[in-house]
Amino acid sequence: MASVFVVELLCVGNELLSGITVNTNAHWLAGQIAKAGGIVSRTTVVRDDLDAISAAVQEALGRNPDILITTGGLGATYDDLTLEGVAMALGRKVSINKTAAEMLKRSYARRHLNYKINKVRLKMATIPEGSTPIENPVGSAPSVMMGKIFCLPGVPAEMKLVFKKHILPLVKDGVGKYAAKEVNYNVTGVSEAMLATTLVRIVRSNPRHAVYLKTHPRGYKKTTPRIRVQIICRGDDAVSVGKRLERISKIILKKISELGGRIE
Amino acid sequence: MASVFVVELLCVGNELLSGITVNTNAHWLAGQIAKAGGIVSRTTVVRDDLDAISAAVQEALGRNPDILITTGGLGATYDDLTLEGVAMALGRKVSINKTAAEMLKRSYARRHLNYKINKVRLKMATIPEGSTPIENPVGSAPSVMMGKIFCLPGVPAEMKLVFKKHILPLVKDGVGKYAAKEVNYNVTGVSEAMLATTLVRIVRSNPRHAVYLKTHPRGYKKTTPRIRVQIICRGDDAVSVGKRLERISKIILKKISELGGRIE
Repeated sequence: MASVFVVELLCVGNELLSGITVNTNAHWLAGQIAKAGGIVSRTTVVRDDLDAISAAVQEALGRNPDILITTGGLGATYDDLTLEGVAMALGRKVSINKTAAEMLKRSYARRHLNYKINKVRLKMATIPEGSTPIENPVGSAPSVMMGKIFCLPGVPAEMKLVFKKHILPLVKDGVGKYAAKEVNYNVTGVSEAMLATTLVRIVRSNPRHAVYLKTHPRGYKKTTPRIRVQIICRGDDAVSVGKRLERISKIILKKISELGGRIE
Repeated sequence: MASVFVVELLCVGNELLSGITVNTNAHWLAGQIAKAGGIVSRTTVVRDDLDAISAAVQEALGRNPDILITTGGLGATYDDLTLEGVAMALGRKVSINKTAAEMLKRSYARRHLNYKINKVRLKMATIPEGSTPIENPVGSAPSVMMGKIFCLPGVPAEMKLVFKKHILPLVKDGVGKYAAKEVNYNVTGVSEAMLATTLVRIVRSNPRHAVYLKTHPRGYKKTTPRIRVQIICRGDDAVSVGKRLERISKIILKKISELGGRIE
């Protein structure tokens, strides 16, 4: 069985908690990690507040995920507090990192921006002591890595590139051999409740994380219930996963038929 | 000054942590609460896991928000565990609630569904002891209220109606007198870093929560930076809020002009 590799996400930003910005970063990251066989155990969203960030980092580390990814709060403005919050959580100081400052200079040069590395801009190179900066391939602020913590920018294009290059390979390594297959059935004439007992029996008789069964309501056609049944199997290799999926599908399709339902 | 009224959100569901469903519930709730003058201090998303739900509820209550809203996990299927998790966090038992069972019957009758209230369906009326069910105006599962905790369905249409009827009035009451004004300037020729010192000075010289200043990068036109400057003022009444907004706008516009920037 593929290893269980657990990731926590911590997204920082008032705009995520006031209806301004939809948290598409958490959604995209979760999708990437799930596709690679990893498990996002929790996402936390906090405001641009030093104490809130620091507390959330400490709590996340206390749950001992394999990695913790933060997004947002790496810029030059007063409300960019993620690195200070992470440092506080770890009982470290922040200081100007020469490598990070060089990255910043290179990022301006690459974009032909005639900016001085002044005090305000140096904030983006002021990182927790003992941490490692990661160059930002698109924008300015470097990402930061320290142990199992990865601090990524909030700008989606920047975040995605850093994730793909530096974190996704770690997730894949951590998960090891991995295959997944999914099938969905659109069903008419069977409600969620009618299938519930069958599904729970299947989930409980298979190894943890090997089978994910979920029914999604699709409303009613007059008084006839319509649902989507989603079956995902995960494991080491495509053959065994495919066999498990087939076995489970058969049981569910038989039950749907017995209940008088039909597949659209 | 309007009172500070703090809300925490706890969203439950594997689909929110695997790239399947974007957490639009948290986004919508945050927008509604912010518009009413409340503050969402944190959003937590956990999987359909009893221990994870229970732990997240305990942690949230430990931070003592004015209210805690959960979404999702109220249905009849094996992975609907929110109410059990909340009960566990509070050291209570769950049991069948007669009022909730009546609500369930009415919801089927209203939709002309010829369903028996069997064991599986009764799960939706099995709620923490001492809690109060709230009728679901659209779907089946009642919402649940106990003290400062409100458990809402995950289906957006159902969640929204219950929020508007039962929670939004509490937020408004808690906030008291409230007015907010917002203005945005699209600026060319000034970067985030160039304005940073001015903005932090303004924020720190005003009462907490009274002023929200944020710069949003809008990329570069060749090497000319472009940003949006967002100014939000909050307070008791429209007149004082408007005056504050005007005063702050003047300072920022003057600085932009001094820096050689211009408003589009």
